[in-house]
Amino acid sequence: MALNKIFKKVSIVGGTHGNELTGIFLVKKWLKNIESISRPSFDTKLILANVEAIDACRRYIETDLNRCFSNELLNSSQNNSLEERRAKEINTILGPKGSESASDIILDLHNTTANMDITLIYSQKDAFTLGLLSFLSSEPLVKLYYMPEAVDDSPYLPSVGKRDICIEVGAQPHGTLLPDKFFPTEKLVINALDYIESHNNGNSKPILRELSVYTHHYNVDYPRDESGQINAMIHPELQGSDYMPLHPNAPMFITFDGESINYDGKETVYPVFINEKAYYEKQIAFSVTTKTIERF
Amino acid sequence: MALNKIFKKVSIVGGTHGNELTGIFLVKKWLKNIESISRPSFDTKLILANVEAIDACRRYIETDLNRCFSNELLNSSQNNSLEERRAKEINTILGPKGSESASDIILDLHNTTANMDITLIYSQKDAFTLGLLSFLSSEPLVKLYYMPEAVDDSPYLPSVGKRDICIEVGAQPHGTLLPDKFFPTEKLVINALDYIESHNNGNSKPILRELSVYTHHYNVDYPRDESGQINAMIHPELQGSDYMPLHPNAPMFITFDGESINYDGKETVYPVFINEKAYYEKQIAFSVTTKTIERF
Repeated sequence: MALNKIFKKVSIVGGTHGNELTGIFLVKKWLKNIESISRPSFDTKLILANVEAIDACRRYIETDLNRCFSNELLNSSQNNSLEERRAKEINTILGPKGSESASDIILDLHNTTANMDITLIYSQKDAFTLGLLSFLSSEPLVKLYYMPEAVDDSPYLPSVGKRDICIEVGAQPHGTLLPDKFFPTEKLVINALDYIESHNNGNSKPILRELSVYTHHYNVDYPRDESGQINAMIHPELQGSDYMPLHPNAPMFITFDGESINYDGKETVYPVFINEKAYYEKQIAFSVTTKTIERF
Repeated sequence: MALNKIFKKVSIVGGTHGNELTGIFLVKKWLKNIESISRPSFDTKLILANVEAIDACRRYIETDLNRCFSNELLNSSQNNSLEERRAKEINTILGPKGSESASDIILDLHNTTANMDITLIYSQKDAFTLGLLSFLSSEPLVKLYYMPEAVDDSPYLPSVGKRDICIEVGAQPHGTLLPDKFFPTEKLVINALDYIESHNNGNSKPILRELSVYTHHYNVDYPRDESGQINAMIHPELQGSDYMPLHPNAPMFITFDGESINYDGKETVYPVFINEKAYYEKQIAFSVTTKTIERF
């Protein structure tokens, strides 16, 4: 897939999950003031992804929309759920995935109950994406989370674009708004648009520097009893410690009877998405990343 | 209604809201170990209230179960929602409301996204309830929130009992568990059971002392635009400040454009349920209480 040097289509998505309010209310704000997110050299598309779920203030109605964008599901002739049908509509609007006419980049706005500050999750490592990430990292609280993912198989909405950044902001309880998440997220998106405008005008020079990158490694489920019910919680020492080192033998969980369950790995790792509400049903207590220093 | 001096029936309820996990997992824990909540002098009943909502990890399926217990709804011949039908079942199990055979006391376990520590909400001021509240207040983080409410009209589940305590624990995002909420809630319930056992054995002596009581006064909605959409968030200075004084002219909200909206009342009040997730749809940004020192 050839990448244009000049970006023509930038898409900003809110409400991929209907109870993650920062992106929903930012997109609604921008829809009332299109000029704030318009730039001369490219077209900015705003979309509220899962309208029914937004109305119900729920993550999804039937199935998780942000797991409906694999080529297999997009090309399926079956329409099993409201969200699978909506995914095909979004693919038409922002894609089609893998095509020349797809969005040059999609910024997808999310919240998490985990203490992840402003996390930028990306699956492409082209020079433009790395330059943009480097630029955005100049703001405080920004973390870089690399999620290696084959585009065709990726079930995530932003994989419809040629480049993808999921902006994951927390800790914020789903269904609520916090100003200290709202305004920094707004600023980050504005910075991204300004960077793309500079790039199109030939003015962007990726700042080569060293940044911490957290690369997705694997997920860890909650301890469960014989019937499959969870029987432990995130340990107080791990709670809120996203991006902090988890050392061998450090506590991970505490059972309902108060017993600690410790990390039995041999290498220090960096947990993220710790105690994310929506991942209880996905059997994920936290995700494990490895930390590297990379030159951008 | 005559109150028995000897308590025979104590009911503990979890899952009145299906995504408030502390009570749900405590009740499940106690169901596996009935002895831990059994006492010789009375019968302890455990109940998971909204089973369908618990399975779905949602507050409710059709309507809020904890607004279905007014006499009018309980005596209605219509069955408009799953929750209204369930309310009648629960009224049979724990009540009937207003009858001699009703639970002597109902402890109803809730969570909130507001920073309310362990709040005991009660509507009865009989000597027994006040003695129990005084005893429970010896634990740290306990707050007393008096909600004047005529029993007949009260829509809340614990109004089915002769006495009612709603145990409201936060801040905790709905659909998650935090050990620092789980274990103190467990301890509080155990303390309550021990107090009732002592009382039945003639050993309880209400400790007469001065305690802070927060009495419900009124609710405050979010600022809204002409279409009814909220257009402001809880101000960072108010966020998390449940039970702290809100002084005249202090900031309450911040608009999506960053403008502060200040409290225009003339008296210092004490907000609670600040930024409770479930109250966005009820048009409540926070509740206002007045603080008094009372002798228990």
